[in-house]
Amino acid sequence: MDFSYSAKVEGLRRELTAFFDEFIHPAEARHAAEAQAQRTAGNPWQASAVVEELKQKARERGWWNLFLPRSAHAPQGLSNLEYAPLCEIMGRVPWSAEVFNCSAPDTGNMEVLERYGTPAQQARWLAPLLAGEIRSAFLMTEPDVASSDATNIQCSIRRDGDSYVINGRKWFSSGAGDPRCAVYIVMGKTDVDAPAHRQQSMLLVPADTPGIHVRRPCSVFGYDDAPHGHMDIDLIDVRVPAENILLGEGRGFEIAQGRLGPGRIHHCMRSIGLAEAALELLCRRVSSRVAFGRPLAEYSIWHERIAEARCLIEQARLLTLKAADAMDKVGNKAARSEIAMIKVVAPNMAVQIIDWAIQAHGAAGVSADFPLAAAYAGARSLRLADGPDEVHRATIAKLELARYAARAAD
Amino acid sequence: MDFSYSAKVEGLRRELTAFFDEFIHPAEARHAAEAQAQRTAGNPWQASAVVEELKQKARERGWWNLFLPRSAHAPQGLSNLEYAPLCEIMGRVPWSAEVFNCSAPDTGNMEVLERYGTPAQQARWLAPLLAGEIRSAFLMTEPDVASSDATNIQCSIRRDGDSYVINGRKWFSSGAGDPRCAVYIVMGKTDVDAPAHRQQSMLLVPADTPGIHVRRPCSVFGYDDAPHGHMDIDLIDVRVPAENILLGEGRGFEIAQGRLGPGRIHHCMRSIGLAEAALELLCRRVSSRVAFGRPLAEYSIWHERIAEARCLIEQARLLTLKAADAMDKVGNKAARSEIAMIKVVAPNMAVQIIDWAIQAHGAAGVSADFPLAAAYAGARSLRLADGPDEVHRATIAKLELARYAARAAD
Amino acid sequence: MDFSYSAKVEGLRRELTAFFDEFIHPAEARHAAEAQAQRTAGNPWQASAVVEELKQKARERGWWNLFLPRSAHAPQGLSNLEYAPLCEIMGRVPWSAEVFNCSAPDTGNMEVLERYGTPAQQARWLAPLLAGEIRSAFLMTEPDVASSDATNIQCSIRRDGDSYVINGRKWFSSGAGDPRCAVYIVMGKTDVDAPAHRQQSMLLVPADTPGIHVRRPCSVFGYDDAPHGHMDIDLIDVRVPAENILLGEGRGFEIAQGRLGPGRIHHCMRSIGLAEAALELLCRRVSSRVAFGRPLAEYSIWHERIAEARCLIEQARLLTLKAADAMDKVGNKAARSEIAMIKVVAPNMAVQIIDWAIQAHGAAGVSADFPLAAAYAGARSLRLADGPDEVHRATIAKLELARYAARAAD
Amino acid sequence: MDFSYSAKVEGLRRELTAFFDEFIHPAEARHAAEAQAQRTAGNPWQASAVVEELKQKARERGWWNLFLPRSAHAPQGLSNLEYAPLCEIMGRVPWSAEVFNCSAPDTGNMEVLERYGTPAQQARWLAPLLAGEIRSAFLMTEPDVASSDATNIQCSIRRDGDSYVINGRKWFSSGAGDPRCAVYIVMGKTDVDAPAHRQQSMLLVPADTPGIHVRRPCSVFGYDDAPHGHMDIDLIDVRVPAENILLGEGRGFEIAQGRLGPGRIHHCMRSIGLAEAALELLCRRVSSRVAFGRPLAEYSIWHERIAEARCLIEQARLLTLKAADAMDKVGNKAARSEIAMIKVVAPNMAVQIIDWAIQAHGAAGVSADFPLAAAYAGARSLRLADGPDEVHRATIAKLELARYAARAAD
Repeated sequence: MDFSYSAKVEGLRRELTAFFDEFIHPAEARHAAEAQAQRTAGNPWQASAVVEELKQKARERGWWNLFLPRSAHAPQGLSNLEYAPLCEIMGRVPWSAEVFNCSAPDTGNMEVLERYGTPAQQARWLAPLLAGEIRSAFLMTEPDVASSDATNIQCSIRRDGDSYVINGRKWFSSGAGDPRCAVYIVMGKTDVDAPAHRQQSMLLVPADTPGIHVRRPCSVFGYDDAPHGHMDIDLIDVRVPAENILLGEGRGFEIAQGRLGPGRIHHCMRSIGLAEAALELLCRRVSSRVAFGRPLAEYSIWHERIAEARCLIEQARLLTLKAADAMDKVGNKAARSEIAMIKVVAPNMAVQIIDWAIQAHGAAGVSADFPLAAAYAGARSLRLADGPDEVHRATIAKLELARYAARAAD
Repeated sequence: MDFSYSAKVEGLRRELTAFFDEFIHPAEARHAAEAQAQRTAGNPWQASAVVEELKQKARERGWWNLFLPRSAHAPQGLSNLEYAPLCEIMGRVPWSAEVFNCSAPDTGNMEVLERYGTPAQQARWLAPLLAGEIRSAFLMTEPDVASSDATNIQCSIRRDGDSYVINGRKWFSSGAGDPRCAVYIVMGKTDVDAPAHRQQSMLLVPADTPGIHVRRPCSVFGYDDAPHGHMDIDLIDVRVPAENILLGEGRGFEIAQGRLGPGRIHHCMRSIGLAEAALELLCRRVSSRVAFGRPLAEYSIWHERIAEARCLIEQARLLTLKAADAMDKVGNKAARSEIAMIKVVAPNMAVQIIDWAIQAHGAAGVSADFPLAAAYAGARSLRLADGPDEVHRATIAKLELARYAARAAD
Repeated sequence: MDFSYSAKVEGLRRELTAFFDEFIHPAEARHAAEAQAQRTAGNPWQASAVVEELKQKARERGWWNLFLPRSAHAPQGLSNLEYAPLCEIMGRVPWSAEVFNCSAPDTGNMEVLERYGTPAQQARWLAPLLAGEIRSAFLMTEPDVASSDATNIQCSIRRDGDSYVINGRKWFSSGAGDPRCAVYIVMGKTDVDAPAHRQQSMLLVPADTPGIHVRRPCSVFGYDDAPHGHMDIDLIDVRVPAENILLGEGRGFEIAQGRLGPGRIHHCMRSIGLAEAALELLCRRVSSRVAFGRPLAEYSIWHERIAEARCLIEQARLLTLKAADAMDKVGNKAARSEIAMIKVVAPNMAVQIIDWAIQAHGAAGVSADFPLAAAYAGARSLRLADGPDEVHRATIAKLELARYAARAAD
Repeated sequence: MDFSYSAKVEGLRRELTAFFDEFIHPAEARHAAEAQAQRTAGNPWQASAVVEELKQKARERGWWNLFLPRSAHAPQGLSNLEYAPLCEIMGRVPWSAEVFNCSAPDTGNMEVLERYGTPAQQARWLAPLLAGEIRSAFLMTEPDVASSDATNIQCSIRRDGDSYVINGRKWFSSGAGDPRCAVYIVMGKTDVDAPAHRQQSMLLVPADTPGIHVRRPCSVFGYDDAPHGHMDIDLIDVRVPAENILLGEGRGFEIAQGRLGPGRIHHCMRSIGLAEAALELLCRRVSSRVAFGRPLAEYSIWHERIAEARCLIEQARLLTLKAADAMDKVGNKAARSEIAMIKVVAPNMAVQIIDWAIQAHGAAGVSADFPLAAAYAGARSLRLADGPDEVHRATIAKLELARYAARAAD
C-alpha cells in the first residue's frame, strides 16, 4: 500500500497543471465573455471558438483522449487510477474537459463504441469522436417514469424489415444541444416480454434522422448549460438501419451497466476538483472579508467548515482512487460496491462544500460573479444523474447485508 | 395559550384560499406562458399583464395591502399574527404576493415611508405605492464589503447645499429591474467619523435621477428573476434634494433595524408556504412513481423525510407565529431574539424540504417543469439576504449568554 | 392564537419554581450523596429518604398528582396544556417528578386504572398509587421480538378457570427495581388467532405473585438507574384472579394506545426541561473556560450551537404544547400525528443539545460531576422507548400521504 | 499508488485473525463473566486472569509489542502503515489490545520512554512495560482548566535540591486504576515565566510515591472501565529524584506533541474496528428482526444507514492509513494535518455508526447485552481525549488557510 502517486502520474499532473496555468486559466475570462456575447446576440447554442483554439494546443502536446483505457485505439492509454488525478484537475474548470476531448457524454459513448461497436460503427462514429470533430449524446432518461429502474423504460424500438423504428420521448439528453452533436445512442425496449434485463437495446441514431424533434433545452436550476445542453427530445417513427444496433437485441441493459461505471468515476474525480476549487475560493474569501471587526477567517465557525471540507475531500479522493484501482484490477462488476460508494460520496461532498463556499461569499455566492452557484447546480444534479443516491445506497446495502447472510449460511 | 387561529383569521384564510382557487391557481399556466413569451421576444423586463389583471380582482375584493399594520393608512390593518397565515398562503405561489400589493421590497419600503416619512414624502411616494401604481427598491447591499455589518457600508452621501450627492455601488437591489420601479431607498454614509451606528443615512432617490446606471441584473443560481430582478447599480454623483432624507442624518441604521424585522417575518411565512407546497409535490410524486416494483411512497426512506418535513414545517410555523405575536405585543426590539430565530429557522427548513422534494422528482426536480429548483434558489438566497445565518445566530447566542451572565452578576 | 401562558399557568409555574428553589435544588447534593452511600453500602435498590421527605412538603402544599386530568379523582385536575409547562420544570432535575407523585411509569399506570379500572381495581391499586404509598411497573417490552409492533408480543396469558396464567419474559420494565413497586401491568396475548389488534390483553399482577423472577436490572449506557431500575423479568406460570384483567380480553392494544399518548407528552416536556438545563450548563461553561487566549464563549462555533439549541428548544416546546392542546381538544386519537411528531422531535432535540453541552465540558461532560452523561443516556433511550423514531415517523408519513391520496380521490 | 495491503500485512492480518478466532472470541464470555464476578464480589479493580492467560499465548506466538516501531528494542518492528490494520482487528474487542501488550496508555508511554528515556529510566520502567509486567498511566488532563490548551496546565513541578516536588490535581488518568500500574508520567509546569511552550516538563513518578492520593474513578457515561479506570488523583508534595525528569526541564510540550500523534493513530484504527463490529451487529440485527410484516433489512431506511456506514468506514480507514503512511515517510510534524484529520474523522464516524446500530437494536442496544452502549461511550470520549474536535479542526483550518495566504504572498 502506497499513498503516493506514481512517478508517471506525478509527471502528468505537473504537465497538466502547467497547461492549465499557461492556457486554460488565462482563457477563462475570454470563454465567459464569448458565451455571454453569443447569448446576448440571441443564440447561445454555438460551439466555442476559445475551446476549439485550445483543443489544437492540447492535441499538439498530446493531451488528448486521456480518458481512453489502453487499447488498440489508445496504445498509450492510462489506467483509471492514472487518469483519475488528471480528471480531477480538469474538474476545477467545468468547461475544460472538452479541450482534451475528455468530456461527457462523449467519453462514455466512445468507450461504448470502442468496446461494443462493429468496425463499421467505429469507422463512422468512433473515429470522428476520437478526433474531436463531432459530438454525441446518450438518450436514456425519460420524463414519465423513474428511469433509474431500467425496466421502466418506455421508449419503443421495433424491428421493421432492415430497419429499427423508434418511438418515445427522452429528456435530459446531455450534449444534444451542441450543433456539432452528430449521433445519439438511444436506449429503448425491443422486447417487452423478455426477462426484465433483456428487454432493452441500444441503437446508434444520427442526429439528423427524420422524426427527431428537439423540443427544448431542460434547465438545471436556472442554467441551460448551452451549448452542451440537456435536451428534451421526441422520437417519432425514427427509422435507422438494423446494423445500427449495438451488440444485439436485448443487450442494452448490459451495455448501460458497463458504461456507467467508468463514466461516473470521471464525474466523481471532477467533483473532487470542483470541491477543491470551491474550498480555495472559500478560504480566499474569508481571508479577505472583515465583519464586526475581524476577518471572517478568524471566526471558528469557518475553521469548522474548512476543516470538515478538507476531511471530506481527502476521504472522497481516496475512496475514488480506490474504486479506480479496483476497476483496473478486478473489473467494473466486482468493483460495483466501490463504484456505488463514490457515486454517493463524491457529489454529496461537493454539494456540501460548494454550499459552504456560497455562504462565505454572501450574495456574491449565488451570483454569476463566482462559479459557485453553477457548480452547485452541477454537483446537485449529479446526485440524480445515472440513478439517484437512493439506488446506489440500496446497491451498497444489499452487498453488505449479503456478506453476513453468506456467513450465517456457512 | 391557544393554538387555534382566531375566528377572524380562520375566516380570512378561507376567503384567501378561495381567491387562490378561483383566480391564482387557474392563472399559473398563463403567467408562466406570458413570462416565457416576453423572454423569447427578447425582453423579460416587463410587467405582467396577468398580474395587473389579478390586481384589479384582488383590489375589488378588498384583498389589498394586507401587510400594512393598523394605522391611519390602514384602518382595518392586521396584526403581524393575523397577517402571517395569509402571507403563508401567498408563499405557495411566489409571484402571487404582488397581486395583493404585498410583495417585497415594496412592503418594507411602504412601512418605512409610513412610519418615518414626512407628509410630503408620503404624498409623493407612499400614496402611489399603496395604490400599486409604482414599485420601489431598497439599495443596501454592496459588492465590495460584508454588508451584513452595516458599519462596512461604503456608499457615500455628501451634503452639498440643498442637495445630497450619492456615490457608490449597490447590488442585489431587488425589484429595481421592474420598469415600474420609480423610487429607491438608498443607504449610505453621511458621516464616517460619527459613532459606528450613527454614520448611516437613508435617502429617497427617484429611479430616473441622473447618475444612476443599472449595470446588469445579478443572477441567483441562473435565474434573473425578471421582471423583478436583483440589479447591480452604479450611483455616480447622484443628486437629490435635501428633503429626500428619511428621518434625518445618522438615522439610517435605526431605520434599517426597524425595517428588517417585519420584512423578514413576511419572508419567513412565505418560506413556510413554499415548503408546504414542496412537501405536497413530494408526496404526490412518491405516490405516483414506481421503482423496483413498488411505489416510492412505500419506501421507508421517504417516510423518514416526509415525517421530518412535517415536523420541521410545524415547528417553524409555530416559531414564526410566536415571533409575530411578540412583535405585536412587545415590539421589534424586545422580540429581536425571536426574529433572529425565525430568520435562521425558516429558510433553512425550506431549503431542506425543497431539496428532498427535488430528490423525489429526479431530473424533473432540477428542471423548470416543477417550481422546485426556482424555489430552492429563492430559499437558499434568503439564508444570505439581510444578513447571513451566522449573524443571526450570533445575535441569538449573545442574548442567550447574557441571560446567565446577568444571573451570575446577581 | 395566543402564545402567552394563561394567568393560571403563569401562577403555577411561579409557585413550582419557588418550590424548586426552596426545596429541590438545595436537596440535590444530599440526594446524590444518599444514592452514593446506598450504593457503596452494597444496595442501591432502596427508596430515597430525601425524596420521601420532599414528598411530604409537596403534598402539604398541594403539589401532588398534578399530572392527573380533571376527573372524580382529581377535581382540580389540569389539562395537558396546563400541566406541560410544570412537567418541563420537573424535567430539569430528573429525580424530582416523584416528589410530586408525577413520575413514570406510575402516571401512565394511574391513568389506565382511572380510565379503565373497575372500582375494585381502583380501590386496591389506584388509591395507594395516588397516595404515593406504592409504586408500579408496566411490562410490555420483550427481548426476543421487535416490541414496537404490538402484534409481535409473545407473552402468553391463558385462561384457566377463575384465573389467568402468564408465561413470558419482559425486560426494560422500568420502575420494577423499586422495593415499593407493588403491582405490574402486564401485556400479553390471550388469543393468537384473533385479529391482529385484538389478541392482546392487560392484567394487573401483584409484584409478589409466585412465578415472578426478577433476573437482573438492565443497564442504560452503564447506568442501572437504581432504585427505579429497568428490570429483566421472567414470568413462569404466574397465576392471578380473572378479575385482574383490565377492560376485558382483547382490549390490551386499545389500552396501550390510550396510555402512550399522554405518557409520552410528559416525557417530551421533561426532555425540554432537560435540554434547557443542558443549555444553561453549556452557556455557563463556555463563559467560564479560556482556551488559546479567549473564553470559549467568544468562539463563533459556540454561538452557532447555542443559537441552534435555542431554536430547537423553542420549536420543540411549541410543538409539544400544540400537541397537548390538541389532546385536550380533540382527543389522543385525532391528535395522533401531533403526538407522533413530538415523540420524534423532543428526544432528538434533547440528545443533540446535551451532546453539545458534553462537548463544551470536555472530559467533565462524560463524567458524573455533571448531569450531562446521564441525561444523554436518558434522552437517547427515549428515542427507543414506546417505539423507535422510525415507527413514529411512519405514522406521520402515513397520515401525510393520506391527505393527498384523499384529495386525489376527490 | 496501490490500495492492496502488502503481502506482509496480508499475512499478519490472516494470522492475527486466526488468533482471534482461536483464542480471543472464544474467551469473550469468560472475560465478561470474570469482570462481573469481581464486581459482584466487591472489587472490580483487579487484573483479569483471562487476559493474563491469553498474554502468554500471544507472547509465545510472537504477537507482542506489535505497536513498537522498528528500533533497538524492536528489531522486527512494524511501520505505522503495517501496524494499523492489525490495530483495527484489535479494535473489534476493546479489551483485546492488552493481550498483545498493545494497549493505551502503555503504548504511548513506552514510546516516550524508548525515544526520550535515559538508559536508567529505560531499565527501570521500559523493560517491565515491554515485558507486560507492570502498567502505567499518563497524567495530563486537569479538572479546573481547558487542558487541550497545554499552556493552561496548572500542576506545579518545583525543583528542590536533588528532587522535584509536584503539586496539582489530575483526572481522567486512564490506566491508573489498575493494581499493576506502577508508574505515572506527569505533566506539569516547571517555569511559569518561560515562553508558552517551554513552561512544561514531564516526570516519571512511581505510583507508590507518598503524596499521591487517588480520589476516585471518573466515570464515562455510567462506566468506570475497571480495572483500567480513569482516575482522579491529587498530587500533594509528591517528591521524586531529579533524574526522573524526561528529556529536561521545559521539554514537556515537545514530548506531548510527539506522543500524541502515534497514540491517536492507534485509537483511530481501533475506532474503525469498533465501527466495523457495530455495522456487523447492525446488519445481523436487521436481518433477524421482523416488524410490521417485513424484516427490518427490507426497509430502505436501513439501506441508507448501512450504505452510509460502509462509505464512512471505508473513507475513514483510507484516511487513517494515509496518515500512517505520512507519519512513516515524513514524520509526525509534517503529517500533522493528516493526524488532526483522522482525530476528527475516526471517532465521529464510529459514534455515528454505533448510534445507528443502537437504534437497530431497540432497547437491547443501550443495554449490556450488546457491546454497543459501551462502545458508544468509548468512541464519544475519544472526541474529547487529547483535545476536543474543535482544537483539531482549528489546526486543519490554520494549515489550509496558510496555503492560500502563502500563495497570495508570492
